[in-house]
Amino acid sequence: MSVDNGLEPPRIVAVVGASELGGKNYYGARLLRNLLDAGSDITAYAVNPRYEGGQIMGVPAFGKLTNLPQVPDTVLIATPVAAVPDVLVEAGELGVATCVIVTRESGGDAARTSFHATIREIADRYPMRIIGPNSMGVLSGTARLNGSFASGAHDGALRPGPLGMISQSGSSISYLLEINRHGRLGYSWLISTGDEAAESLETLFEHVVEDPDTKVIALFVEGVADGPRFRRAALRARVLGKPVILLQTGLSAVGRQAVHTHTGRMAGAEEAFRAVAAESGLIRVPTFERFYDTAKVLAEQAVHRSTIPHRRRAVVLTSSGGSGAYTVDHLSSLGWTVPPLSDDIRSELERLSGQHDLQNPVDVTGSWADPELFPRLLRVMADDSTIDSFLISTGAGGTLALPVAEALAAVRSEIPQELYVGWVGISSQVAAVLESAGINAFPDPARAVLAAEASAQFRRNGRDGRSGAELVELLAATPEQVEPPETAHATGGEIWTAGECIDSLTSSGVPCVRSMRSDGLDAAEVERLAAEAGFPVAVKLDSPQLSHKTDKGAVAIGVANVDELRVQLARLTRIAEGERLADPRVIVQSMADGVEVLVGLKRDPSFGLILAIGVGGVGAELYGGGIETTVLPTTRTGLADLVDRHPMLNRLLDGYRGAPPCDRTALIDLLHRYAEWGLSRGSRLQEADLNPVMVGRRGAVVVDARAVWSA
Amino acid sequence: MSVDNGLEPPRIVAVVGASELGGKNYYGARLLRNLLDAGSDITAYAVNPRYEGGQIMGVPAFGKLTNLPQVPDTVLIATPVAAVPDVLVEAGELGVATCVIVTRESGGDAARTSFHATIREIADRYPMRIIGPNSMGVLSGTARLNGSFASGAHDGALRPGPLGMISQSGSSISYLLEINRHGRLGYSWLISTGDEAAESLETLFEHVVEDPDTKVIALFVEGVADGPRFRRAALRARVLGKPVILLQTGLSAVGRQAVHTHTGRMAGAEEAFRAVAAESGLIRVPTFERFYDTAKVLAEQAVHRSTIPHRRRAVVLTSSGGSGAYTVDHLSSLGWTVPPLSDDIRSELERLSGQHDLQNPVDVTGSWADPELFPRLLRVMADDSTIDSFLISTGAGGTLALPVAEALAAVRSEIPQELYVGWVGISSQVAAVLESAGINAFPDPARAVLAAEASAQFRRNGRDGRSGAELVELLAATPEQVEPPETAHATGGEIWTAGECIDSLTSSGVPCVRSMRSDGLDAAEVERLAAEAGFPVAVKLDSPQLSHKTDKGAVAIGVANVDELRVQLARLTRIAEGERLADPRVIVQSMADGVEVLVGLKRDPSFGLILAIGVGGVGAELYGGGIETTVLPTTRTGLADLVDRHPMLNRLLDGYRGAPPCDRTALIDLLHRYAEWGLSRGSRLQEADLNPVMVGRRGAVVVDARAVWSA
Repeated sequence: MSVDNGLEPPRIVAVVGASELGGKNYYGARLLRNLLDAGSDITAYAVNPRYEGGQIMGVPAFGKLTNLPQVPDTVLIATPVAAVPDVLVEAGELGVATCVIVTRESGGDAARTSFHATIREIADRYPMRIIGPNSMGVLSGTARLNGSFASGAHDGALRPGPLGMISQSGSSISYLLEINRHGRLGYSWLISTGDEAAESLETLFEHVVEDPDTKVIALFVEGVADGPRFRRAALRARVLGKPVILLQTGLSAVGRQAVHTHTGRMAGAEEAFRAVAAESGLIRVPTFERFYDTAKVLAEQAVHRSTIPHRRRAVVLTSSGGSGAYTVDHLSSLGWTVPPLSDDIRSELERLSGQHDLQNPVDVTGSWADPELFPRLLRVMADDSTIDSFLISTGAGGTLALPVAEALAAVRSEIPQELYVGWVGISSQVAAVLESAGINAFPDPARAVLAAEASAQFRRNGRDGRSGAELVELLAATPEQVEPPETAHATGGEIWTAGECIDSLTSSGVPCVRSMRSDGLDAAEVERLAAEAGFPVAVKLDSPQLSHKTDKGAVAIGVANVDELRVQLARLTRIAEGERLADPRVIVQSMADGVEVLVGLKRDPSFGLILAIGVGGVGAELYGGGIETTVLPTTRTGLADLVDRHPMLNRLLDGYRGAPPCDRTALIDLLHRYAEWGLSRGSRLQEADLNPVMVGRRGAVVVDARAVWSA
Repeated sequence: MSVDNGLEPPRIVAVVGASELGGKNYYGARLLRNLLDAGSDITAYAVNPRYEGGQIMGVPAFGKLTNLPQVPDTVLIATPVAAVPDVLVEAGELGVATCVIVTRESGGDAARTSFHATIREIADRYPMRIIGPNSMGVLSGTARLNGSFASGAHDGALRPGPLGMISQSGSSISYLLEINRHGRLGYSWLISTGDEAAESLETLFEHVVEDPDTKVIALFVEGVADGPRFRRAALRARVLGKPVILLQTGLSAVGRQAVHTHTGRMAGAEEAFRAVAAESGLIRVPTFERFYDTAKVLAEQAVHRSTIPHRRRAVVLTSSGGSGAYTVDHLSSLGWTVPPLSDDIRSELERLSGQHDLQNPVDVTGSWADPELFPRLLRVMADDSTIDSFLISTGAGGTLALPVAEALAAVRSEIPQELYVGWVGISSQVAAVLESAGINAFPDPARAVLAAEASAQFRRNGRDGRSGAELVELLAATPEQVEPPETAHATGGEIWTAGECIDSLTSSGVPCVRSMRSDGLDAAEVERLAAEAGFPVAVKLDSPQLSHKTDKGAVAIGVANVDELRVQLARLTRIAEGERLADPRVIVQSMADGVEVLVGLKRDPSFGLILAIGVGGVGAELYGGGIETTVLPTTRTGLADLVDRHPMLNRLLDGYRGAPPCDRTALIDLLHRYAEWGLSRGSRLQEADLNPVMVGRRGAVVVDARAVWSA
């Protein structure tokens, strides 16, 4: 691991604070034990003044780092908190590439903050990577390094392989080691980031993305400090064709608080991660089981990738009618096709199985007695490239289970399609036989289906790699945000009214409906503005004190003539008085037609501005339909993709119930200009909503708007 | 098992078609082997002419049933298809209580249909229960009976216990046996219904509900022929406080086809099951894993039920900050509260653990070294009856795992709360230790949370048992449907227009908006009707050829005076001509105000009429918000519950955005009368929609309607 060249396998490792098992330092002992048990040819040294000149677990022990006969490339630190800074400085002076601090400061917030600051200061001084403190350690199958105190790595041995995992929870790495204890998943890197005083999840993610040994990335994320960096790494992974699986915690209020308590981290907003996931094809999973299931399948496929074009078309083979229908239900619910078999294949399957009326699912109930039946049927279908996946749905099997598994393992290499096995009540022996042949096996067909879907999702993402590359270029070219002059945001206090927003938007080239603002509530002035706009007009009270104009009745639309205007103005004046508005004004607007779209900007503390779209108007809040989001800046392709992702909005824009289709190009152009407007406002802009934007047959215009600024 | 007294444990069992293992009849051999391996004191006889006078597996063999020295109460049949009818008749003549036919007719649809008819005919002739054909068998822990060929019951032994399972897939029973091989779940009955030529899922469900040994019921359902009977049994289970867990297949089109192919059954409509589940508190689960997890937990709790009032308030204990936050996220997403700890408890926990800032989740990272820590902390919180559940979230643990599990097992009996353990990478040894103490353990904290939620859901259902009892009474009092006179449905061909519907509804006392229908498009007639209704009015074309009036522009609302009426009538006349309507008419209606509600009736082939409600008007189709359903007949309480279940409708009825609240009583009254109208129309009524019903501040009226009749 060198700082300049990303992650490199360590060769010489020192454990500072090493101890004998059963001694005073559990972590120091466990680190050394795991390191030795991994059985690699890494040169290990123990550092502990109490053992100076002696040995620990047969490893020569030294009083301090500077006494070692060689300079280690990696130093694992498990000393008491007070000793850590000196060890780091010694390492820095020696030219060590990486320090991993396992030591944890548990003396409360203030002590932790100060400890972190000291570490960060030393990290800034030397070209040395510092991971932790409070890290469970760093493991690498490639280097056969177990530099962790993980209790799950029983004999310390680690298989090399394609999976790189970066985790903000050390436990999730222990869990993986335990689950995969008899499995065949191999690891390039498993890194527990700990408290991230210096290196962070996102810097380590960047390195793992570029690491040639890593083909699949798994992230356990509680919070991200540098959102844009995370986003760039995620996009790079997409461009490089490396799937990224994301398990995120802190999604609930209490969960966020828990994350904050145990690490001091701010948990990430679900919205922002959803936006990043959508643009870079992150595979988000809700549970540990899905996390490990998905990692296992994608790692297997990174090594043995099917050459059949993937269109989510599956054949289900089953030894039980009920399981077959069950598996088909789960496939269908995710949009998979379970196509009918061709007549040729059907008759061949029927001949081979002696069964009548075989369909897809291919149900050969009672076929257990012949373990060669599944393989024979699979061979018949292997040539059909309209099938891209086989799902075998079965369970139990008694003494016949193992022969069936062995026969499947033997035929695997003859089948070019993806092959998933869902086997309820699978024994570890049967699972081992299947997995040794590269067959992904799960204890429930529903989990096999979810794994197949994750694979399909990854392949779909891969098809759009180009737009990811475009976005990476854009982000590389985007300068750090510069604060704009005061005038861009300071005229209206903390909330901008529609009038203020429309003035600012218009001068930045965002198309707004023809709109004029009075200086007060004087009838003559308002009538003059209305005449200028041309009847019919909309008339609205404009005041920072009125944040829900429509609810207060402070909006009149379709005002047809001067008489109606007078009536409405009198009514608005009464509302202004009732609400005791200071400085009330009126906006007079031309009427706009079209589909109402809600467009919002919101600042995320990690990721910056997030652009959201949804159905606009009064119905939006009631009917929902949800919003879709993207992080800014983004490309036009990214904006078009954003609109495509909102099904209800798409139905409306396509022309719902015989209405004419709307001008999507104009909407995307408006979004693009609005994003630029937002990005050039500076960091005081917290929220800005356009509601509605009217998208007509030709053109799109902002009709109402509101912006919130921080002090 | 006697026909009159429900399910009774068998004492004397004959296997017809019995054979030695490795002989010609695999199923006959497996049945006898399983029966003997169960080690019960059931008297077993083998019947097979080829072994007459000898023995099979040490059991005396006879040529036919009538030669047995005793009359068996139960006969298991695994002969060839051709021999089955004679065996059944012999059994019937002898007075056998139950026959279970394992034999399967696999010669195609026609052969199967004829085989079923023969069986049904014999079942009608004798007071004998016939299960199957194509059943995997019948098992009972209570009787230590393994009357199945299940390969999962390795040594045949079955524990007695509270779980009764009825399954339309024999495999799902094998799977359960395999999964629970080392577990401690016990069974009252496990019944594979097979093709249901005579006994059906619903008749067996009825018996299991009333069986005193059965406390928890699990159903694997593909389709139900007699929906009302299923519904009554589900309601009885609710009244008796027995949870029913339902796994349903055939939810997708291909899944339905698969169910039909392998059993000839029609898969049940998801809608109807959803409706039955809502009223009787069925716990629907989507996967095998959830099915077995839920059965395990509810069976455990049926024996050891917590006395603490359940309000879904949990404390999470964890050995990992990440796992703790993860578990809290999952609890929160299901609406659970993870309340703060009291100051007293916090300081006591901090004293005992030596940790700072303990919150809920209680995160004692690095506590593994002391297996007594979790028990000590649990004891401190056991007295706090505001906590109803503990979730322990952990994983792996290496050599320390077993001592931790043993300590938890030892403390279990001191904790009155519910206790769930989510342990990632749990070993079978650790799971066995926990489960032997009655602690429900799962390989993912997310699964522990789902199990806890199923338990909470069941307790919630229990609180509303009274309305279930009311409904059971109503159903008992409901006569079989009688076909009404022709006039109730036959006037308008296959589709009734709004005009026809409103006439019929009005005469049945369903409140409709004041509404008159012209005989044609004559202006004078329409003007007279409008004058009678009083302006403003709505005017609509009325023709069975126009099923989407609004889309065609054939509706004019808010017509203010005669001049506007003439303009509109001219327009409607043009549309009628354009659409070439035969016999076009116009409906003239008073205008009604209020919230638009969609009310639908639809006939389900198994369950009869289903009543649906949703948001009405043009927006309904676009915005959805979904529909909620109930099966008919139902009570007023059932209808009020139906409305309560629709969140969006409730927001509207409560008065959305400052609107006044609507007249719910009037809506429920309308639903009640409409349900009676539907039930008295006879079986030709297939669908009838009221869209919209207007629910105002006072009253509710039907504004538009449509009905579809079968020929």
